[in-house]
Amino acid sequence: MTGTGVWLIGARGNVATMAAVGARALARGETEETGLVTARPPMAGLALPDVADLTFGGHEVREGSLVESARTMAAGGAPDRDTVDAVADDLRAIDDRVRTGTAVNAGETIAALADDAADAERSLAAVVSRIRDDYESFRAAHDLDRVVVVNLASTEAPVEEPGRYDTLASFEDAVADDDPGLPASSLYAYAALKGGHPYVNFTPSTGSALGGLRELAVENGVPHMGRDAKTGETLVKSALAPMFAGRNLHVMSWEGHNVLGNADGRVLEDEANEAGKLQSKGGVLEGILPDIEHNRVRIDYTPSLGDWKTAWDYIHFEGFLDTEMKLQFTWEGSDSALAAPLVLDLVRLVAYADERGEAGLQPHLASFFKAPLGVDDHDFSRQLERLREYARERGGDERGDAGAEVDAGGD
Amino acid sequence: MTGTGVWLIGARGNVATMAAVGARALARGETEETGLVTARPPMAGLALPDVADLTFGGHEVREGSLVESARTMAAGGAPDRDTVDAVADDLRAIDDRVRTGTAVNAGETIAALADDAADAERSLAAVVSRIRDDYESFRAAHDLDRVVVVNLASTEAPVEEPGRYDTLASFEDAVADDDPGLPASSLYAYAALKGGHPYVNFTPSTGSALGGLRELAVENGVPHMGRDAKTGETLVKSALAPMFAGRNLHVMSWEGHNVLGNADGRVLEDEANEAGKLQSKGGVLEGILPDIEHNRVRIDYTPSLGDWKTAWDYIHFEGFLDTEMKLQFTWEGSDSALAAPLVLDLVRLVAYADERGEAGLQPHLASFFKAPLGVDDHDFSRQLERLREYARERGGDERGDAGAEVDAGGD
Amino acid sequence: MTGTGVWLIGARGNVATMAAVGARALARGETEETGLVTARPPMAGLALPDVADLTFGGHEVREGSLVESARTMAAGGAPDRDTVDAVADDLRAIDDRVRTGTAVNAGETIAALADDAADAERSLAAVVSRIRDDYESFRAAHDLDRVVVVNLASTEAPVEEPGRYDTLASFEDAVADDDPGLPASSLYAYAALKGGHPYVNFTPSTGSALGGLRELAVENGVPHMGRDAKTGETLVKSALAPMFAGRNLHVMSWEGHNVLGNADGRVLEDEANEAGKLQSKGGVLEGILPDIEHNRVRIDYTPSLGDWKTAWDYIHFEGFLDTEMKLQFTWEGSDSALAAPLVLDLVRLVAYADERGEAGLQPHLASFFKAPLGVDDHDFSRQLERLREYARERGGDERGDAGAEVDAGGD
Amino acid sequence: MTGTGVWLIGARGNVATMAAVGARALARGETEETGLVTARPPMAGLALPDVADLTFGGHEVREGSLVESARTMAAGGAPDRDTVDAVADDLRAIDDRVRTGTAVNAGETIAALADDAADAERSLAAVVSRIRDDYESFRAAHDLDRVVVVNLASTEAPVEEPGRYDTLASFEDAVADDDPGLPASSLYAYAALKGGHPYVNFTPSTGSALGGLRELAVENGVPHMGRDAKTGETLVKSALAPMFAGRNLHVMSWEGHNVLGNADGRVLEDEANEAGKLQSKGGVLEGILPDIEHNRVRIDYTPSLGDWKTAWDYIHFEGFLDTEMKLQFTWEGSDSALAAPLVLDLVRLVAYADERGEAGLQPHLASFFKAPLGVDDHDFSRQLERLREYARERGGDERGDAGAEVDAGGD
Repeated sequence: MTGTGVWLIGARGNVATMAAVGARALARGETEETGLVTARPPMAGLALPDVADLTFGGHEVREGSLVESARTMAAGGAPDRDTVDAVADDLRAIDDRVRTGTAVNAGETIAALADDAADAERSLAAVVSRIRDDYESFRAAHDLDRVVVVNLASTEAPVEEPGRYDTLASFEDAVADDDPGLPASSLYAYAALKGGHPYVNFTPSTGSALGGLRELAVENGVPHMGRDAKTGETLVKSALAPMFAGRNLHVMSWEGHNVLGNADGRVLEDEANEAGKLQSKGGVLEGILPDIEHNRVRIDYTPSLGDWKTAWDYIHFEGFLDTEMKLQFTWEGSDSALAAPLVLDLVRLVAYADERGEAGLQPHLASFFKAPLGVDDHDFSRQLERLREYARERGGDERGDAGAEVDAGGD
Repeated sequence: MTGTGVWLIGARGNVATMAAVGARALARGETEETGLVTARPPMAGLALPDVADLTFGGHEVREGSLVESARTMAAGGAPDRDTVDAVADDLRAIDDRVRTGTAVNAGETIAALADDAADAERSLAAVVSRIRDDYESFRAAHDLDRVVVVNLASTEAPVEEPGRYDTLASFEDAVADDDPGLPASSLYAYAALKGGHPYVNFTPSTGSALGGLRELAVENGVPHMGRDAKTGETLVKSALAPMFAGRNLHVMSWEGHNVLGNADGRVLEDEANEAGKLQSKGGVLEGILPDIEHNRVRIDYTPSLGDWKTAWDYIHFEGFLDTEMKLQFTWEGSDSALAAPLVLDLVRLVAYADERGEAGLQPHLASFFKAPLGVDDHDFSRQLERLREYARERGGDERGDAGAEVDAGGD
Repeated sequence: MTGTGVWLIGARGNVATMAAVGARALARGETEETGLVTARPPMAGLALPDVADLTFGGHEVREGSLVESARTMAAGGAPDRDTVDAVADDLRAIDDRVRTGTAVNAGETIAALADDAADAERSLAAVVSRIRDDYESFRAAHDLDRVVVVNLASTEAPVEEPGRYDTLASFEDAVADDDPGLPASSLYAYAALKGGHPYVNFTPSTGSALGGLRELAVENGVPHMGRDAKTGETLVKSALAPMFAGRNLHVMSWEGHNVLGNADGRVLEDEANEAGKLQSKGGVLEGILPDIEHNRVRIDYTPSLGDWKTAWDYIHFEGFLDTEMKLQFTWEGSDSALAAPLVLDLVRLVAYADERGEAGLQPHLASFFKAPLGVDDHDFSRQLERLREYARERGGDERGDAGAEVDAGGD
Repeated sequence: MTGTGVWLIGARGNVATMAAVGARALARGETEETGLVTARPPMAGLALPDVADLTFGGHEVREGSLVESARTMAAGGAPDRDTVDAVADDLRAIDDRVRTGTAVNAGETIAALADDAADAERSLAAVVSRIRDDYESFRAAHDLDRVVVVNLASTEAPVEEPGRYDTLASFEDAVADDDPGLPASSLYAYAALKGGHPYVNFTPSTGSALGGLRELAVENGVPHMGRDAKTGETLVKSALAPMFAGRNLHVMSWEGHNVLGNADGRVLEDEANEAGKLQSKGGVLEGILPDIEHNRVRIDYTPSLGDWKTAWDYIHFEGFLDTEMKLQFTWEGSDSALAAPLVLDLVRLVAYADERGEAGLQPHLASFFKAPLGVDDHDFSRQLERLREYARERGGDERGDAGAEVDAGGD
């Protein structure tokens, strides 16, 4: 399969930058596939688009350039400066394909970050129309078989009464009425699904989660999935919590405290936006440990950490004969380095599903998300098993070893 | 099913004491089934022997009494003193059924702990014969349908060249020749399997792992399983390591440091004995993360901790674009409170298998062990799924909820 | 010196209960002086009142009894149940001396905890008069040389514009005018200083910190000190922060996250009250590390922890050549077990000062407090050195060894 | 004061490299004085030699170059690559002044690291004579007022029966007799003191600690000090342990576990060398907490960490009423970035003492060392106060603020 375009909303943000740097570094043989789930069997055995063949473009509301973003991140430790130098020309080429995005209805903090141009637009219908044109121009300009749209923009506040948009008709009425409750992420998603472009919501924002958009995806035969990529603390939670359940240990309290220093952290200080994030982070534990008594997640902005995130989790649990015990962990990771390969994985898997006509939600991708649409199971191991089964059923081969190469070059 | 006897080797050790206290407290309605895996569906739906109906006895090489052991442990925090008081009479009754064990070939440290009587015996054949008599007298005295023998004694040094005992004939020759390389744990196991008693090796000692004893189990139609119960740090490892593998994250170093204060810790200071423990703890990671570069486990004796164990694990891993990240955890648990319910689980499940004529190794019990005999998969989640499947295939019902009661009373 | 009374405001709270249990257990030889600063030389060499000779009484706004409080705490692990049994009669005797306190102007959360009787009073002058009578009746009934009043009640919200009460005249006018801004803690302090009773504010509440009350203390020749005892995370901070300063290491961020489960935690969930606490906790770092860029303290209520508190501190600092490094610590302590001996220390030292006519603030007691009145130095080591110097100047002997006995019995 | 030479034994090791990079980066205005104790008042007020004016040379037993060492370290994160580039010419100039060292009697692990040339020498007298010539040629070639010799070489095994060398006569006899027990570090120290060069032992090796060498220092009027720089875990210990002592909290167990990945870690895997390190690390706690029951330090080699060290310390202590509590910390630091500024501090302070004729041991420098020669007090805060007093007595001014500039420039 060739000709896959990747349209990143939030195209110069940290995750998008890391994904672009990584894809091009793989294409140029400057790095290896560590962190790419699709590089492992049996997924590696599927006919997925090569990472090296992906063509990148996107929307962005802030000024700047990908090279600038990459150099700023390199100063914080990842990616490596040599790698950025090696792909700088590629990044410049991608930058030329970045269009001005919209921050309509995305909340005050995000609006404040956006440049004027992005806010000048008035009618939602006009916004949607412009976005659709941007997608289509990209596809046409690069003669792509398909364009996968991925939302990587900063987290919006949750939609109030999302039930209002439960049907496609009600959603389209709201667009026509310039409904101020309709968030930017859902406009991008609508434009994608309407145009037949597969869509992935990597963030906790609403995106394609509304009933009306799910209806549209099925109607138009487009695959889509979301939401809120599971990259750090919540990933660990979804691996550890099933252990307590499986051993019938009673979790009394699970406190999670995250400190992070990037733009995401600054946005999350806006309480409304934070609400969106905490909802999907917290839900993971409730799902796996229905008897949990106390479950709190805090996210704080610690500027000196830059793109790095540290989480401290404190788990107070009870075992046999009411014996109280404790597990604590600290996780120190680069959010973007954890997220970026998953962007590439999701693009490859959603493009593959689109090629095969597998439309609508993609539950086998649940392991990638904190709040997987249409899936109740939050056990990471079982979610991953579901992906492996999907791959095996489609001919992915378990025999390939863990070191199997991503075919990073084409010709 | 009624009439199940439980014969504990190391009958007054911490784990045995906690198991006896817990079983009797459950029988008397003094506690709940937290920590018992078999209390959860679908296992709870199987016709397992009631915990309340189990009859306890065992071997011990040290002086003392169960009530004494329990009171000493209560001073350290678990079990609760009220619970010990409530079951004190039951513990005394069990104590009357404890016989002097053997420390033949168990290493110097363990021999030093043992009372003289235990060492006075000379010929291995005589030792085996006495053990068999003890098992049988217990069965007869209490009119039991079956006796499950569980090894809870302190860890022995590993057997050198275990291949020497690969057949039943070679094993029996070694007994006849008073082979000094044949450890006590294997003599107890031999006596059990020879007499048709199901056998569980809860410790890292050799027990029934020798080829000759596996042959005997099959020949005699007796279920058996081991070894080294997965209760703390290694349990967490087997839940976390698959997360790194599943996300294709490269673990460079995994340092594990355990500090503990009980008799187990004292014995592990004997380097030879430690070797046995570290072998099964370390193997878990190698199995799940074949590319791991550095994997070390340390066990240190810290007297003030009593029966509590603290582990610090430091995991240094690499993600996308060679980004280095870290996960650390500390685990603070009561080893005995974690282990004791698993003893009861294993007794119930092995007795059930015996009732159904399911002889030989029991791979569906792999989740209970650090080095499960005959099973290569160390992924805790997958091991547990295997147990659930076993239960479902035999009519265990997934619908039962997590709070399903252990039927703790008889009539 | 004999005849010292201890009047505890919040007399059945955890700290008061632990202090009373500990003092009586010392008197009865049931425990040792671990945790008592005054048991160490050179302080041990001063003519301090014997712990065994202290007579306890106090105010409380909640129903209940000391024995009940002590038993509830024993269930959580400290004090030990045997110790509570040994001093139960002593606790009952103290309970007979507990009078109904006031929750006037203490904030909604605290008022909600109080029983009706405590709130029935109307005029501040009447409240003060009743409190003074309670102090005096206690002194007279037990023929005491002096009564040291210690505030252990739950944290109030900070006073707005404390400058309004900068003179004794303005304070007394406010009492006469029934000023709703005047907190309960300051009324208790006023009653103490007015009656000539030494006063210690163990909490972050306002107490004797108002200018008018400091004036009164000097005028009446009464020693007093506060505020906010330094027992856990902040103690560690005040020991560690000077290390960074001394080595010229630049602290960029210091995140402190406290989780606790007692009544104090519940009260601190009330945002206004929390403000009071965070002010003194945060100030310690600013004092020692003037260049710190980011300093945050969080306090969360985690019910399952009971009287225990866990703190996680994450310190991100920069060394030579801008190298970024990290120190993290977790502290798990029983707040009351840490606080209680300091109550006894402060009573002994303030009674001693009173006996010697050392009136007003007591800066040599700074090491006991997070926000020591009249002292800017937050370096724990230097604060402690000041106490040692005070003792040496008054004849305390450095030669006494660390194990020197508290003379716990008299006759 | 001008004309100070710095002769580093182990001149291309990590600490030496970082010290050289840092000194030159300061000279060139490429970095700030973070981490330099002498940049803070009152020390900053003394007439210390400017860092920018120091002239570097040294001995090394391994091949390679400073630029190579610095680039390898930069790949691990510190120092920054730009900084290395900025001082590369300066490093090459220093490299020209590095002479082949000796590994005589330094133990097998170190000898294995050394190149052949270093081992070719036979008689100790000849070794000493060559070293003295190297020092003197350096001084003469650069017309230096004085040369401070600093031992930064890998840790040797401890000397057995150091009492044998208690007098200068016995030491010199041992040299004449080619005594195989006399370690390389003491030969370097002897050569320095004999030639009138101030000497600092930054490592746990023996160096100038022998009685005979102390005698020589006094006789020749040369200042010297050591040993084992306090840079990481032990620094934290010496700041935290006095807190437990000051509050009369009883430390039952203090477990320290260090993992590190540099050459130092590899050498410490040699058990004999490890013994030397553990002795000084362990002694700090025994000194501050005489009643400690259990105190263990482990050092393990974790290759992936490179020049970084992580320490986990677990402190189990008892407070009032025998309540057991815990403090844990993890420290993640670059050993070299912590150590390097202290090398510069010590050179400046020892050169200053030499200029003033303050010969023999320098107890006011105790805060820099784990096992300060001639000082029993391990309390970091008190040690540091001693340095401040020294500076104040000599006119250092407390008023200078913490941000006072190191005068990093020329004339």
